[in-house]
Amino acid sequence: MVGVAPRTVPGGGSFDGALGVLCSLEAVAANGPRPLTQRMVVFRDEEGWRFGRGCFGSRAVCGQLAEHEHEHELEAEDSGGVSVGAALAALAIEPGGSPGGLPASYVELHLEQGPELERQGLALGEVSAIAGMAGFTIEFTGLPGHAGTVPMTARRDALTAAAEFVLSIRDTALRIPGAVATVGELRIAEPATNVIPGRVALSLDLRAPEAERLSSLADAVPAVADGAAMAAGCAATAVATWRLAPVAMSDRVRTAIRDGAAAAGHPIAVLPSGAGHDAGILAAAGVEAGMLFVRSQNGGASHRPDELTDEADVAAAIEVLIATLATLAGC
Amino acid sequence: MVGVAPRTVPGGGSFDGALGVLCSLEAVAANGPRPLTQRMVVFRDEEGWRFGRGCFGSRAVCGQLAEHEHEHELEAEDSGGVSVGAALAALAIEPGGSPGGLPASYVELHLEQGPELERQGLALGEVSAIAGMAGFTIEFTGLPGHAGTVPMTARRDALTAAAEFVLSIRDTALRIPGAVATVGELRIAEPATNVIPGRVALSLDLRAPEAERLSSLADAVPAVADGAAMAAGCAATAVATWRLAPVAMSDRVRTAIRDGAAAAGHPIAVLPSGAGHDAGILAAAGVEAGMLFVRSQNGGASHRPDELTDEADVAAAIEVLIATLATLAGC
Repeated sequence: MVGVAPRTVPGGGSFDGALGVLCSLEAVAANGPRPLTQRMVVFRDEEGWRFGRGCFGSRAVCGQLAEHEHEHELEAEDSGGVSVGAALAALAIEPGGSPGGLPASYVELHLEQGPELERQGLALGEVSAIAGMAGFTIEFTGLPGHAGTVPMTARRDALTAAAEFVLSIRDTALRIPGAVATVGELRIAEPATNVIPGRVALSLDLRAPEAERLSSLADAVPAVADGAAMAAGCAATAVATWRLAPVAMSDRVRTAIRDGAAAAGHPIAVLPSGAGHDAGILAAAGVEAGMLFVRSQNGGASHRPDELTDEADVAAAIEVLIATLATLAGC
Repeated sequence: MVGVAPRTVPGGGSFDGALGVLCSLEAVAANGPRPLTQRMVVFRDEEGWRFGRGCFGSRAVCGQLAEHEHEHELEAEDSGGVSVGAALAALAIEPGGSPGGLPASYVELHLEQGPELERQGLALGEVSAIAGMAGFTIEFTGLPGHAGTVPMTARRDALTAAAEFVLSIRDTALRIPGAVATVGELRIAEPATNVIPGRVALSLDLRAPEAERLSSLADAVPAVADGAAMAAGCAATAVATWRLAPVAMSDRVRTAIRDGAAAAGHPIAVLPSGAGHDAGILAAAGVEAGMLFVRSQNGGASHRPDELTDEADVAAAIEVLIATLATLAGC
């Protein structure tokens, strides 16, 4: 099975999802009859923009819609009032899972959507794992006050605590190979130019390619938040909001991709995927899965109109995909 | 002339402004005939909540409404559609200034609205100067990116730059005695939990009791912003939006207040006012002005319902005000 995850996000580019569809068509067409059956699957709504939750297509194939969410997710509606159940029925897909069972192996081709291959000067990458992710909401509470009347040494400034946290969690992530930490939202309660912030809430998104590294990063959060708060005379609360375990890609598929690259004469990087992909759903469901990344231009720009992948890189990716499929199909 | 600035802010306390009115009534009533005329004045709308610009009453008395803003400020309307000009006419005040001229000296009694007297354990304070103030808007520009796909070392995170700035400008202010720096507003452009912030704008409010100290703080802003930006691979712009020079209180009035406190047997602190007051307008217009601060409870809470000043502190303040007025009125 060769899969791609066509995505459409408002204001997105022309390569995300579509690149995988076209490369897979080329690769499947190029391959002749094989001992094992090859199928191409195009998963819908990996981003979750239509029904509010991602990996909708791959989870449906793996029978995880009804199983994990009972009737609830099937009743979720898009902006046009079409429910998940109705959309599946229109495609003749059973929400209980693929009637033919799951495939033995799965390969997904995707643009990197990050800067790593560009930085390494390589067209192709082989994904070691889909990163695990953990989300937190952190709140710092100090004491609001007049910007003119409270001396610096008497302040309990919640924004100062938040600033200490932003830098400290960055430093913590820097010490763990492959880990990343992002504060993407930060909100001062009742902000005003002449008022010392008394309360600040922020979001924290953590990712790491292995469970242990994700744990050591996530486990550090309460102490990092408390330390930042104390440095500013404030108090902190850290609430874990969601967590997804990292999913390793299959050794057999990874070897097939690397061998395919070697056979085609293309050097290939090994890197984890910080973004989620349908391959992670298949792998977690027991399918031997792997991913082939193609270099993104413009520093990894994605979900933007300037999303770009070079034609020569695409040609190289198709060659490697053909060789990989041949191996996996038993040739 | 003894002045007070009655303020009313939504959700404010019972002491701000009103304390000065009542203490001044007591002090003027206690004093008998003097060689110089004493008048009590109650200034309106020092906060500027009604017409959008503060110190409206004292600026009117000093003839600064028409002078500084031409017809414009007189035409500004409150939420009920009443203009500044109409409000002044209803009070029979000429916007061109006080027909009787300005007084020789001016004393303003006010609660501190800060924690300094409470910290020093003193009921009373004598104000050395109204702090100078400078406002800036700072913007940091980096590169937005996916929270999962951009390695920590490749990021140009504008929120990290802003965090470096918040801490660095705090440290700069800490090195200048009496100076304060406050970031009260911070806004991430297009915030999302899974997106590295590409642009962050923040407000900066600087205050210092002397022109030189305000300058050394304000002059440091561009370099502090650039340094913070560079540490995060970003760029910074710092735009100065407003500036008010510090105003020293009159030596003669300050001495009268301190002598009055000594005569009444009340120890008195000397401190600058970080907040603006009508006394600053009078002083800038050439009047010998001084301020008597009364201790605020609850860490200097003000503009809040728990604003509080102790009865014994108020009694001490009235004694000192009576003695001060006696000196200034030529007894």
